[in-house]
Amino acid sequence: MKIIDVSMEIHPDMAVWKNKEEKRPQFEVTRDHGPDSPARETKVTLDMHTGTHIDAPLHFVANGETMESISLQSLIRPAKVFDLTAVEDSISREDLESLSIQSDDFVLFKTKSSFHDGFDPSFVFIDKTAADYLLEKGIAGVGTDGLGVERSQPDHETHRSLLGDKVVIIEGLRLAGVEAGEYGMAALPLKLKNVEAAPARVVLMQDDSEPIQ
Amino acid sequence: MKIIDVSMEIHPDMAVWKNKEEKRPQFEVTRDHGPDSPARETKVTLDMHTGTHIDAPLHFVANGETMESISLQSLIRPAKVFDLTAVEDSISREDLESLSIQSDDFVLFKTKSSFHDGFDPSFVFIDKTAADYLLEKGIAGVGTDGLGVERSQPDHETHRSLLGDKVVIIEGLRLAGVEAGEYGMAALPLKLKNVEAAPARVVLMQDDSEPIQ
Repeated sequence: MKIIDVSMEIHPDMAVWKNKEEKRPQFEVTRDHGPDSPARETKVTLDMHTGTHIDAPLHFVANGETMESISLQSLIRPAKVFDLTAVEDSISREDLESLSIQSDDFVLFKTKSSFHDGFDPSFVFIDKTAADYLLEKGIAGVGTDGLGVERSQPDHETHRSLLGDKVVIIEGLRLAGVEAGEYGMAALPLKLKNVEAAPARVVLMQDDSEPIQ
Repeated sequence: MKIIDVSMEIHPDMAVWKNKEEKRPQFEVTRDHGPDSPARETKVTLDMHTGTHIDAPLHFVANGETMESISLQSLIRPAKVFDLTAVEDSISREDLESLSIQSDDFVLFKTKSSFHDGFDPSFVFIDKTAADYLLEKGIAGVGTDGLGVERSQPDHETHRSLLGDKVVIIEGLRLAGVEAGEYGMAALPLKLKNVEAAPARVVLMQDDSEPIQ
C-alpha cells in the first residue's frame, strides 16, 4: 500500500495565518542530554489552526459543537482528490459542476496553494456559490490546501454554511504530489477536549496493485 | 469497519507523568464568539509526552534520531493486542514467552493500567528481560497503556535498548475496551519537526464481517 503524507510540517518558521507572530508555534526544549539529564523533552505551544487541521462547528458557530462531534468514521474513509490548479482566485460553483461530486463524498481540492510554502494572502478559497453547491450535493467533508476555506470573506459565509451543516472541514493540506483520483484517507486530529479545531496528521492511501489514476 | 479509538483524551486534568504540574497541558481560548469576534480560537501548550504519544530515539539516546526517522509505513500496519491484565508489577520475559510474538510484529500490551484513569506511580512497566526478549524476536514496535514503557528504572534500560534498536514505542494507550487479537492500526503523530516524541491519535480497525476475536 502506498501511503502519501498530505500534512504540513509544524515548525517555528512555517506559514501561519496572515503571518501573525502570535500564530507561530513555539518549541521549548525543557530537558536535554547532558551531565544532569538522561533525556530530551520538548514542549510545544500550538494554535489549534496551525498547519493541517480540522475545524469543528464551534470555530464559526456560536455555541456550536466541538471536535468530539466529529466521528472517526467520518475521518477514516474514502476521499476524492480534484485538480483545481487552474483556478486563479477562488473556487466557484462553475468550477465544480463538471466534477463527479456525489452525496456523502469527502472531497479534497488541490489548488496552486499546494505549490506555495509561505503564507499567500491571495490563496485560492472556496466562495459562497461553491459552498452552496457542495451543500446541495450533500458532501460529508471538504479539504483544502489553503490555510482556510476562505480568506476573510464578509460574514465568513463559507465557514458558516459548511460548519452549520456539520460538513467536516480540513484546512492546510499539502497536495502537490497527489494525482487527482480516489484514495483511502486517514485524517486523525489530536484528541483534545472541548476545542473548536485540532491539528491533525492526514494521509492518503492507495493500493499499489491498482493502476495509479 | 469497526474503528476503536485507543487514544487518551487531552485536557488540563488528565493523568500526567508523576502528577507534575509543569507536565499539564494548558488550554487558552484566545478569541471567542461575542460582539468583537465572530469565531472561537484556542491555543494549547503540550509536553510531547502528554497522553498517547510516540517516542523517537532522541528521547533517551544522545544525538539519536527525531520523529522524522519513523516512517508512516511503520505506523499504519497490522498490530497484535495481548492481554497482560494478570500481570501485577512488571512485564518480564516469562510473561511473553508463551505469546505468539514474531519478527516484525507491532505488539500492544493491555495491562491493568488501561482501567486506571489517574497517574498510577506503580503502573505496569516492561522490564529489561522483556525488552531483551522483544529485541531477540525482532519486533518492529511496542505499545503500552502505561504512561511510559518503564517507571524510572536505573539507566532507563528498557527505553534505551528499544530506542537504540529503532523499535517504535507508543505510550499511554487506552486498551480497556479492546479484546486480544489482530487489528489494523493507524498511529498518527503530529508532524512536528525535530522533536524527540510527539502526541498521536491512535486507532485500531477491525473488519466487521469477520468474527470478533
